[in-house]
Amino acid sequence: MNRPSGRSNDQLREVTITRNFTCHAEGSVLVTFGNTKVICTASVEAGVPRFLRGQGQGWITAEYGMLPRSTGSRMGREAARGKQGGRTVEIQRLIGRSLRAAVDLTALGENSITIDCDVIQADGGTRTASITGACVALADAISYMNAEGMIEGNPLKQMTAAVSVGVYEGEAVLDLDYPEDSNAETDMNVIMTEAGGFIEVQGTAEGEPYSRAELDSMLALAEKGIYELIDLQKAALAV
Amino acid sequence: MNRPSGRSNDQLREVTITRNFTCHAEGSVLVTFGNTKVICTASVEAGVPRFLRGQGQGWITAEYGMLPRSTGSRMGREAARGKQGGRTVEIQRLIGRSLRAAVDLTALGENSITIDCDVIQADGGTRTASITGACVALADAISYMNAEGMIEGNPLKQMTAAVSVGVYEGEAVLDLDYPEDSNAETDMNVIMTEAGGFIEVQGTAEGEPYSRAELDSMLALAEKGIYELIDLQKAALAV
Amino acid sequence: MNRPSGRSNDQLREVTITRNFTCHAEGSVLVTFGNTKVICTASVEAGVPRFLRGQGQGWITAEYGMLPRSTGSRMGREAARGKQGGRTVEIQRLIGRSLRAAVDLTALGENSITIDCDVIQADGGTRTASITGACVALADAISYMNAEGMIEGNPLKQMTAAVSVGVYEGEAVLDLDYPEDSNAETDMNVIMTEAGGFIEVQGTAEGEPYSRAELDSMLALAEKGIYELIDLQKAALAV
Amino acid sequence: MNRPSGRSNDQLREVTITRNFTCHAEGSVLVTFGNTKVICTASVEAGVPRFLRGQGQGWITAEYGMLPRSTGSRMGREAARGKQGGRTVEIQRLIGRSLRAAVDLTALGENSITIDCDVIQADGGTRTASITGACVALADAISYMNAEGMIEGNPLKQMTAAVSVGVYEGEAVLDLDYPEDSNAETDMNVIMTEAGGFIEVQGTAEGEPYSRAELDSMLALAEKGIYELIDLQKAALAV
Amino acid sequence: MNRPSGRSNDQLREVTITRNFTCHAEGSVLVTFGNTKVICTASVEAGVPRFLRGQGQGWITAEYGMLPRSTGSRMGREAARGKQGGRTVEIQRLIGRSLRAAVDLTALGENSITIDCDVIQADGGTRTASITGACVALADAISYMNAEGMIEGNPLKQMTAAVSVGVYEGEAVLDLDYPEDSNAETDMNVIMTEAGGFIEVQGTAEGEPYSRAELDSMLALAEKGIYELIDLQKAALAV
Amino acid sequence: MNRPSGRSNDQLREVTITRNFTCHAEGSVLVTFGNTKVICTASVEAGVPRFLRGQGQGWITAEYGMLPRSTGSRMGREAARGKQGGRTVEIQRLIGRSLRAAVDLTALGENSITIDCDVIQADGGTRTASITGACVALADAISYMNAEGMIEGNPLKQMTAAVSVGVYEGEAVLDLDYPEDSNAETDMNVIMTEAGGFIEVQGTAEGEPYSRAELDSMLALAEKGIYELIDLQKAALAV
Repeated sequence: MNRPSGRSNDQLREVTITRNFTCHAEGSVLVTFGNTKVICTASVEAGVPRFLRGQGQGWITAEYGMLPRSTGSRMGREAARGKQGGRTVEIQRLIGRSLRAAVDLTALGENSITIDCDVIQADGGTRTASITGACVALADAISYMNAEGMIEGNPLKQMTAAVSVGVYEGEAVLDLDYPEDSNAETDMNVIMTEAGGFIEVQGTAEGEPYSRAELDSMLALAEKGIYELIDLQKAALAV
Repeated sequence: MNRPSGRSNDQLREVTITRNFTCHAEGSVLVTFGNTKVICTASVEAGVPRFLRGQGQGWITAEYGMLPRSTGSRMGREAARGKQGGRTVEIQRLIGRSLRAAVDLTALGENSITIDCDVIQADGGTRTASITGACVALADAISYMNAEGMIEGNPLKQMTAAVSVGVYEGEAVLDLDYPEDSNAETDMNVIMTEAGGFIEVQGTAEGEPYSRAELDSMLALAEKGIYELIDLQKAALAV
Repeated sequence: MNRPSGRSNDQLREVTITRNFTCHAEGSVLVTFGNTKVICTASVEAGVPRFLRGQGQGWITAEYGMLPRSTGSRMGREAARGKQGGRTVEIQRLIGRSLRAAVDLTALGENSITIDCDVIQADGGTRTASITGACVALADAISYMNAEGMIEGNPLKQMTAAVSVGVYEGEAVLDLDYPEDSNAETDMNVIMTEAGGFIEVQGTAEGEPYSRAELDSMLALAEKGIYELIDLQKAALAV
Repeated sequence: MNRPSGRSNDQLREVTITRNFTCHAEGSVLVTFGNTKVICTASVEAGVPRFLRGQGQGWITAEYGMLPRSTGSRMGREAARGKQGGRTVEIQRLIGRSLRAAVDLTALGENSITIDCDVIQADGGTRTASITGACVALADAISYMNAEGMIEGNPLKQMTAAVSVGVYEGEAVLDLDYPEDSNAETDMNVIMTEAGGFIEVQGTAEGEPYSRAELDSMLALAEKGIYELIDLQKAALAV
Repeated sequence: MNRPSGRSNDQLREVTITRNFTCHAEGSVLVTFGNTKVICTASVEAGVPRFLRGQGQGWITAEYGMLPRSTGSRMGREAARGKQGGRTVEIQRLIGRSLRAAVDLTALGENSITIDCDVIQADGGTRTASITGACVALADAISYMNAEGMIEGNPLKQMTAAVSVGVYEGEAVLDLDYPEDSNAETDMNVIMTEAGGFIEVQGTAEGEPYSRAELDSMLALAEKGIYELIDLQKAALAV
Repeated sequence: MNRPSGRSNDQLREVTITRNFTCHAEGSVLVTFGNTKVICTASVEAGVPRFLRGQGQGWITAEYGMLPRSTGSRMGREAARGKQGGRTVEIQRLIGRSLRAAVDLTALGENSITIDCDVIQADGGTRTASITGACVALADAISYMNAEGMIEGNPLKQMTAAVSVGVYEGEAVLDLDYPEDSNAETDMNVIMTEAGGFIEVQGTAEGEPYSRAELDSMLALAEKGIYELIDLQKAALAV
């Protein structure tokens, strides 16, 4: 056992999911994975983007940001630089794609839900915390739409969560924090549903290529972590 | 007494100031004025912008943002639009100007402090809450600089706070929330030091021009509110 | 008496207001406050921005710019940099807000007036000169609308003018030029109507905070200056 | 004779050249070609852009803009749109290229001159008026550099002027105003030196292609106009 | 004979025109002028830009780009810099203007054709190669529109081609490659129709002004080259 | 067997790799996967970006673009829109990350290689074709650096190639073309080295989540395809 965090290889950080964190959004969740803290809101709007009009289906999109001092040294504010960075763009596309795959867009009617994931404190795993929290905010937004009579039934097909896994000093480990992540040989993000289907697998060799055996070990850890996260999501929604 | 909030005309909302709200910044404060909630961080960096190099003084600058769903309906994300809006620019210039006036820049040495004020929930008065919270974050950042030996003494000349006042249904009122602000005839932001000096007064007639008597009433309310806020700042810093 | 300009503390610079300075705009004024020279045009257009459509009221907006060599050293051209600076944004918002407050927007019908203030030579007080000149251009644009039958009556409730005041070497002074402004302890812009109502007061401590007594002195000077400016506006319009 | 302006085919509009139009620039000229009015300034700065450093030569560059209401209907402000339009870019490249060709850049030393041409009123021919006025501003800037001891001798090899010619209702005409220009079959801008050399010829068929005979007629008119303009430039500089 | 290329003064480089170079566009041509290689596509779309709607005519516009490593040293990618450079803007306006002049826009109906000229390898003359190739792509796009029944007849009034000429070491030369172009005293681009009409003449003195005699020599060479290019265009279209 | 392309499930499209496709770049490859055609260049430059200076290692970065009419309907040109789209950003980050993982950056010395992948014709799989072609261009650029004495030895640790796999009508298939890709339930891109290590796996459920069994089938197909592609890369380099 050699993780800087002192956790066992298959151990998540402490995870909390706080609903109704802010008061305006139809879904608003503060999710924490250890020291990583993200505000996830889901905003409902009637209507869909132009390219979908008249097709009888809804749309889900996501935006992601980090407060400038969510990190150890201050990052430039993207709004001031006039441009979202490549990493931001890549992450918000991942979040949107994942949540769309979790939802029956036709059952959503011609309505849109915008997910905003804003990192207020970062310690690794911000994209997986974002997806995990956003799915709960999405569930709340859907409840709002049911209550308002905008839709009937539940377009969210299954709960969906995300976790990172990696190879750290030769061993597969679950839910890397920043010190682990910045020294990992491989970094993989896995997004799965409660029934065990994959929505996205994205694994990158940071240094040496990884073997098929390492890939299998990481996927096994991810599956374990995802099920625990989905239990936490359900517990939060049951309150 | 006819304020929507039910407060008396000279009554602040409940104000809280929580230090060390996030873990990375040299100063990090969550400030709440009722339902308005702002994260204020102060980030210390050695060196100054190019236009100040070699002049033996420091610099303080500020940036301001609102999370897209901090408001009743979702606003477009400025980073995605590629441009900060005019209101954002105006507010962040006000915050920076106010804090620079509160500090002896020469005593800061050739160091920079960047203030970030990010509104996570908005209900009127975000700029005055930002300045009030930022001044506490600034005090913590200065303590950090003292502890690190970057500077000696306290460049913060006096505590500084800000509050809004206005004319609502013909009467001067203190610390307007959003329902009050959006119907006020006049909206004024006042920034003062603990010794009672003015750092900025900015009062705008939204509808009819305001009279000198109204101006005087508003300034009196502001002074009362500022002193209460400075007491709260000092109490927070004493913990 | 110690002003660099040799003026008495309550003395305006020489002010000229030339109507019909260019030939295309519905209102076109060259205003000079001493060496500060600004072209102010008012452009009439039927229709209003989207957010106002169908509400039976008009709109006034303003844009501000400085020619690159209106100043002592050349400033980068904002169009070439691809971005209006923060100061520009702040000033054009002030101009628009002030003129909207001076006009009964409902009486304007669903028509828009765009004010452009372009500084061709700068020597302090460009924003107050801009507002003072723009109000005359606005009056001419309204006459045009009357003549064209676009509206009836005069939506301009009162003439409105603006002037800067400040504290220079410990004394309140009126209408600061650049050498005075760049050394003033306090800089305040005041916008008033001919009936003596305040449309905007904006006063900033550049160095030390200013006292209530200084604030009162500055407001008294501003009132005197504004009345003189409004007389000049009326004289220009009477030609 | 059928020009809307009533001029003969080889007749320039009334041209005026006013030096020292604004007070800050090293060269500042108001040039008018009839109702077309352009402020041309030349700003001197020690040093050259990075790509020229250490090569012992100077640089001249130009920027061009139109005030939003210099035209019959208001154009969007390029600084607000965040982008210079294609026509603007094309014109300012033409101005810079022409003036560089008129100057011995080596004799300029490692100094830069920036030309700003800002159209305050437009009625056709803004680019040719700009070049004609800018050459006078450039001459004044060079005199300034001589007086300051920055350079010796005169790097301006020859006076340079520009004029438009075109084919209007089948006949070659000189110096088109806007009503003529917008109906011309061909539009050509010619830039020449006082010795009769061509610096730039740019002729565009708006409708039908033009013949070699038409090209020759236009060039002859241009040459006549250029010589008259250079006489006016010299007269202005002789004052 | 002293051209670096060893060609005679009136000799074109080897020119090839390959139709159907890519499969999706309605017209797709690879044009080579020696080592200069440009992909020219013509894309047909029903409808016209807003400013032309309802006027019963079509529109042709052009865009131009260079692959970053089409040149000897890598140029920054314009998409990554967020801005097309001035040279790009100037060239694409020239291409669009030239092709519009070659076409009867009314006969095009309310349809648009977008020309894209992308330089994959550059060795001087990219704009003239672009126009020459684009005219063939345009002819193919028009054939497509005929075949689809979108229009009847041929809106392309005449074949149009472009070539550069210049003065190199005191002699007029045709179709300059990069080593010639970068040392030429004068650079001129000429665009003509098969009937010998001029669509655009643009000649710039790089160093010394050019004389009328040099202008005439260059125009004569250009005419010769254009006729050869139009023969090659026709041969390509005859396949 | 039901692929629209008529290929067997484990069959690549015809792949060609043409070196020295353009003449200026240190490595220049045209790669085709069926109708997908991409120009991949590698540009060598001495020096590294600021964040790496003095660390004794090199850098590889990549940019990606599509010609506007590389696709069935014309896409807006990113340079003209002033912004690279999210998909572009995501792909170019993937390409750069993959090639960096394939190279020993320390052995590269303080030199940079920029990869440009420009799609001239698209039919699915542009990112995998880009990586496969770029690795050959990279090998040529490294040979250039060896020949120039910039480095010794071969920093390219192993040949690297990429291929897409997916689930189409319930069956795993290799190297999807556009008609297959746009109807696939799952789309996965796999990047591997010749020794069978994974550099990146990225699999996205487009509709239903995919199972572990489907993941395994796709990985097996990918491995087979990658080995074939690496054989083709080696054959091309052996010429």
